[in-house]
Amino acid sequence: MGHSTVDELGMELDIKSTSSSHHHSESIPYMHKVVVPPKQNPLKEFTATVKETFFADDPLRHFKDQPRSRKIVLGLQTIFPILEWGREYNLKKFKGDLIAGLTIASLCIPQDIGYAKLANLAPQYGLYTSFVPPLIYAFMGSSRDIAIGPVAVVSLLLGTLLQNEINPKDDDVRYRRLAVTATFFAGITQVTLGVFRLGFLIDFLSHASIVGFMAGAAVTIALQQLKGLLGIKKFTKKTDVVSVMRSVWSTVHEWNGRSIIIGMSFLAFLLFAKYIGKKNKKFFWVPAIAPLISVIISTFFVYVTHANKHGVQIVNDIPQGINPSSVKEIFFSSEYLIKGFRIGVVAGMIALTEAIAIGRTFASMKDYQLDGNKEMVALGTMNIVGSMTSCYVATGSFSRSAVNYMAGCNTAVSNIVMSFIVLLTLEFMTKLFKYTPNAILASIIISAVVGLIDTEAILLIWKIDKFDFVACMGAFFGVTFASVEIGLLVAVSISFAKILVQVIRPQTAILGQLPRTTVYRNIQQYPDATKVPGILIVRVDSAIYFSNSNYIKERILRWLTNEEEQLKKDSLPRIQYLVVEMSPVTNIDTSGIHAFEELYRSLQKRNIELVLANPGQVVIDKLHASSFASLIGEDKIFLTVADAVLTCAPKMQEP
Amino acid sequence: MGHSTVDELGMELDIKSTSSSHHHSESIPYMHKVVVPPKQNPLKEFTATVKETFFADDPLRHFKDQPRSRKIVLGLQTIFPILEWGREYNLKKFKGDLIAGLTIASLCIPQDIGYAKLANLAPQYGLYTSFVPPLIYAFMGSSRDIAIGPVAVVSLLLGTLLQNEINPKDDDVRYRRLAVTATFFAGITQVTLGVFRLGFLIDFLSHASIVGFMAGAAVTIALQQLKGLLGIKKFTKKTDVVSVMRSVWSTVHEWNGRSIIIGMSFLAFLLFAKYIGKKNKKFFWVPAIAPLISVIISTFFVYVTHANKHGVQIVNDIPQGINPSSVKEIFFSSEYLIKGFRIGVVAGMIALTEAIAIGRTFASMKDYQLDGNKEMVALGTMNIVGSMTSCYVATGSFSRSAVNYMAGCNTAVSNIVMSFIVLLTLEFMTKLFKYTPNAILASIIISAVVGLIDTEAILLIWKIDKFDFVACMGAFFGVTFASVEIGLLVAVSISFAKILVQVIRPQTAILGQLPRTTVYRNIQQYPDATKVPGILIVRVDSAIYFSNSNYIKERILRWLTNEEEQLKKDSLPRIQYLVVEMSPVTNIDTSGIHAFEELYRSLQKRNIELVLANPGQVVIDKLHASSFASLIGEDKIFLTVADAVLTCAPKMQEP
Repeated sequence: MGHSTVDELGMELDIKSTSSSHHHSESIPYMHKVVVPPKQNPLKEFTATVKETFFADDPLRHFKDQPRSRKIVLGLQTIFPILEWGREYNLKKFKGDLIAGLTIASLCIPQDIGYAKLANLAPQYGLYTSFVPPLIYAFMGSSRDIAIGPVAVVSLLLGTLLQNEINPKDDDVRYRRLAVTATFFAGITQVTLGVFRLGFLIDFLSHASIVGFMAGAAVTIALQQLKGLLGIKKFTKKTDVVSVMRSVWSTVHEWNGRSIIIGMSFLAFLLFAKYIGKKNKKFFWVPAIAPLISVIISTFFVYVTHANKHGVQIVNDIPQGINPSSVKEIFFSSEYLIKGFRIGVVAGMIALTEAIAIGRTFASMKDYQLDGNKEMVALGTMNIVGSMTSCYVATGSFSRSAVNYMAGCNTAVSNIVMSFIVLLTLEFMTKLFKYTPNAILASIIISAVVGLIDTEAILLIWKIDKFDFVACMGAFFGVTFASVEIGLLVAVSISFAKILVQVIRPQTAILGQLPRTTVYRNIQQYPDATKVPGILIVRVDSAIYFSNSNYIKERILRWLTNEEEQLKKDSLPRIQYLVVEMSPVTNIDTSGIHAFEELYRSLQKRNIELVLANPGQVVIDKLHASSFASLIGEDKIFLTVADAVLTCAPKMQEP
Repeated sequence: MGHSTVDELGMELDIKSTSSSHHHSESIPYMHKVVVPPKQNPLKEFTATVKETFFADDPLRHFKDQPRSRKIVLGLQTIFPILEWGREYNLKKFKGDLIAGLTIASLCIPQDIGYAKLANLAPQYGLYTSFVPPLIYAFMGSSRDIAIGPVAVVSLLLGTLLQNEINPKDDDVRYRRLAVTATFFAGITQVTLGVFRLGFLIDFLSHASIVGFMAGAAVTIALQQLKGLLGIKKFTKKTDVVSVMRSVWSTVHEWNGRSIIIGMSFLAFLLFAKYIGKKNKKFFWVPAIAPLISVIISTFFVYVTHANKHGVQIVNDIPQGINPSSVKEIFFSSEYLIKGFRIGVVAGMIALTEAIAIGRTFASMKDYQLDGNKEMVALGTMNIVGSMTSCYVATGSFSRSAVNYMAGCNTAVSNIVMSFIVLLTLEFMTKLFKYTPNAILASIIISAVVGLIDTEAILLIWKIDKFDFVACMGAFFGVTFASVEIGLLVAVSISFAKILVQVIRPQTAILGQLPRTTVYRNIQQYPDATKVPGILIVRVDSAIYFSNSNYIKERILRWLTNEEEQLKKDSLPRIQYLVVEMSPVTNIDTSGIHAFEELYRSLQKRNIELVLANPGQVVIDKLHASSFASLIGEDKIFLTVADAVLTCAPKMQEP
């Protein structure tokens, strides 16, 4: 642990400050007052709060004191960061981006086809979604490492939510129309959050519950793949473990041996490739191209052996050509407008959470700043455009972004490269996927989602914070045993509950003096800290607001009562001063002031004086505004606990 | 302001700790380590959190180490506090209670009749509600000063919510049945909150929004009384200012001169009585009995002059006899069950908020403790019993409780006395109210609710906290210009928004050294505090959780960037150490640890060392569990900022 701790002067001085009269106030040579800050304009104060809440990053900083033409350029650069980094783009950077782009393209094409199935859409919609959105993002996004396209969790979530409304088998046109409607509103949601600077809303999903949700979604997705892997034709529409396993066992007679052999052997191959890539970072490209290789080999195998005539299900025709327009498919009226809106909001938020988490991770690895609100506008725009070009919700894919990063991408140009490859695929190669067996897509998806189960993170959460672990497991079991929506609901609720507990039950601590110092610390943490006779020092570890003011008042009185009972039992002198260390109290509201007034009255009844130590800027201001400071006496407010003790101890009445 | 501040040793020592080499580490004589607390059992840790959240007051404290028979007695006393205080009851106490009881009875009878009208119920239901609930409360409640019965705001709220469902004029039986159903569920809600120790939920309504809500409700109620005061027959069902004023103006031709004269003159009398009571506390009984006197005089006047035949509306017959049973009237099935439940939950919560606020206020004035959860059980039980005896939702009345207190009540026996007087009234005197003019009830209600507009509190809120003021005004205008429910919704939403802002945007501050001390304080608050060259000291003023971890990381980096830009401009030496003062950081979760890891990586890229000062018990534990402590190096964690500065400064590289 920290190697040094002298007292706060860095000198060894054996002060007997626990004896009650070693210092007389007249010997105090220098006085530092608790400063009351100058009165602020209320409007200014309010503006400052609003600014810090919504414009914490001061987005207009660069625009200050600039000529008008420059402002226009800066404005355009803000919306299209490509105008900024594009000017310094060079061949060397392109080399990295080209390799990275090719690598993620080879990874995304088979994934896209599989993910589209998760969303109950035809395979080409996955490819469409890997063509338009990455292009838009490349112009507007500010992350250099993210790889855009359809992702497993959002596909599953969208598929589940959509099929609650319309059965895709009954009415696939209307289902697809609802999907683009949801995508449109997902984009609108994302842009809105960005423009109104509500990006902080996604911070309400805690890391722990995201880890649990992702792991649960991965398990659910993997289980869904049993359909393709085992060649089952009739499969449950539910996604929970129990229903899926029941569905799997009840159809044992349907299982297709060839499918199983193809699926399992390639799954083993893919997992082995993943293992190699993990073992040696140099071979990151092995798991990246393994899926495409699997597709090629297995497709060839099926084509040659006519396995599709022996029950091996295949992809079948994917229409040739790039994204058709879907502007007219979006529901702008009818009952589906509301449904699409609701689904879009949920899917948009989850997509956002994933993209921002990925963006932040890689930004911190390369040490560049990511503007969350700007990102949201970029992601939202790409989904709005996507919804008009037959795409469904796209976002940043964790697995592909990691490959992108490791393959040495430098800018979003790698997304353009990938997009171009997908374009070529759509134009010229869709026919090649006709004989691709579904089993291989299943094994590709399984090997992809395995990475979403972050056991290391789960273990770490268990080690660090038990409450977080409960949230994590809640989300996990919610997804696996109930449904994706329930899991999400559990994750959000537990996250909120945690915030509320934090707000309503702040911590308090009894302080004691560390030997041979004037430092006062929690006696629970520092058992050698000693209490000062006759003085009880309580530290309140939170802003004092209506939500906790009563609790804090009662907690302080309870500390006092316990202490008094203990002192009485040991026939020690009674408490004469209660020092409240206010350093951590960053703010106080009217309820808090009331609570303190009540505390003061209770203490008066018990003949104990209330003393405050180190109230901060805002607090001291409010103590004065409410004239609480003059109620307890301004000479009862000290800069430090040590000051308070030094002043109170000599004044103590003999017991 | 606080008169003394020496440095933390109480001595004047001019340390040049801002020069970078005045102390060499070898000269540091005594080291105090940041202590890592012993590993706790995770289950125990979890239990402790749960206990502090739900059983903060340790309700079973008294039961510890007691023989079994004693435990039973204590258990009974816990449920029925009367068994405890009743044993010490004596004649002297009864004298106080008798006078107080008679006073509040004289105040409550006319109020009851008026409040029942607010709830769209017949007058006797107001009286019923002042008979049974106070009796139950006297046995189970622990407040000594609260006066139980129907109150204006809850009556209005209940009336509004009920008439949204059923028009009382169309179907008064069903309306009444829904009212008792709602009352039943209000009681159930209250008991449930108490038993499951969820009492803290009512703390989520902030003081400020309650003040605004109450003031708004008072204005609304007063406006409603224009109907009775002006003798209007057809009145709007809406409660907002605009609708009511329109309704009043459009019926100018209907106004009844006699009603207006009676109402206005007695209103003047009542307000004058109130003024006298306020002016001199000795005359508190003047406003207390003024309503009854007004009723008697005006009733006599109407009876003698037959004013009821000239358009003066009167109360008419009130059936004689005590509360009939209403057990069978509660809807336990049909669509009204859910409606009653919903209305009951809202009305129950508001009633609870009012009662607990009153209870706490008077408890702190007489310095006794009030157990919130126990109170809820008592209030809930009284409403459940009330719902079975034709009462509607009862709670503590602020105006009557204040009179009760000033009249010298000692225990809840004053409620029993009041209850007894109401019993006598119901049995023998209902006929006397036949000719009581509605106008007089209107003026009694107006004079009662005027007290709910707490202008002093509103002014104080404006002075102390602008955000609170917005909440207060939001609730006020919500109630007056929209409806009671909207006002309530606004109050709750603003309260929540405030909590969220607190949680997502914690404060941070740059610290500097106060001259001639080793104390480091916010340089904004203490302009004479000086920064240490080459070292940036940032204090984080909140627990670091998922909801703010990103913000905190980015805020710290922004402080750093600003500082670096400033230093560059002034060609001063660059920052080499970033000291994060963690004293106020009471907890950190996995997201927080991640944010710190990202901060650490960013700093590494900038060649700046990360140093932590004074992490608390929980935090240091988690820093170790996550091995973040070993990542940054355990010698980078110090007990105080002063220690950190003393150790870092000498190691600084020459710029």
